[in-house]
Amino acid sequence: MARRLSAEDRAQTLAPLLSAEHGAWALVDGRDAIKKTFVFADFNRAFAFMASVALSAEKMDHHPEWFNVYNRVEVTLSTHDCQGLSARDIALAAHIDAAATSLSK
Amino acid sequence: MARRLSAEDRAQTLAPLLSAEHGAWALVDGRDAIKKTFVFADFNRAFAFMASVALSAEKMDHHPEWFNVYNRVEVTLSTHDCQGLSARDIALAAHIDAAATSLSK
Repeated sequence: MARRLSAEDRAQTLAPLLSAEHGAWALVDGRDAIKKTFVFADFNRAFAFMASVALSAEKMDHHPEWFNVYNRVEVTLSTHDCQGLSARDIALAAHIDAAATSLSK
Repeated sequence: MARRLSAEDRAQTLAPLLSAEHGAWALVDGRDAIKKTFVFADFNRAFAFMASVALSAEKMDHHPEWFNVYNRVEVTLSTHDCQGLSARDIALAAHIDAAATSLSK
């Protein structure tokens, strides 16, 4: 069972995501969740990103909420079990950022 | 350049989608678009469906707007070029329904 990030966890692991130099995650209004929008060259690249994230998500048994139209993918992360942000979201965010970076080259 | 479906097109090709026996598409409020929600056994199946649709979409050079969370995929179809429904949406809807059927077995 996942548990919500503590105040200390948030300072240590969430804060860096919210202030990343190369595109930050943002808190979602009215919900303990984070979101980020990724824009790629075209649909081919956007879906390659989604496929990469899907494999990581399935392996981690933790899945994103996401919306895609053409070259844009809007990702929201939160943990159903604890109705808020957990360490799983921080871990998945790292995989997502890595996938986006490798596909934006 | 795509053109919007005429009244005659709508009666002949859109109406059947809106009244399909095995799960109908619905018109979107305030927009000339159609939507449908697909639910699968799990994320693996839902993403397999998305991968299948992505290949068709890329081949047709016509892409869906879609939202996924775990086993649920919400698809919206409309044509950017003509700001409304075109024959491309009807064709893509057929591919999408076929993919969903084959992955729900």
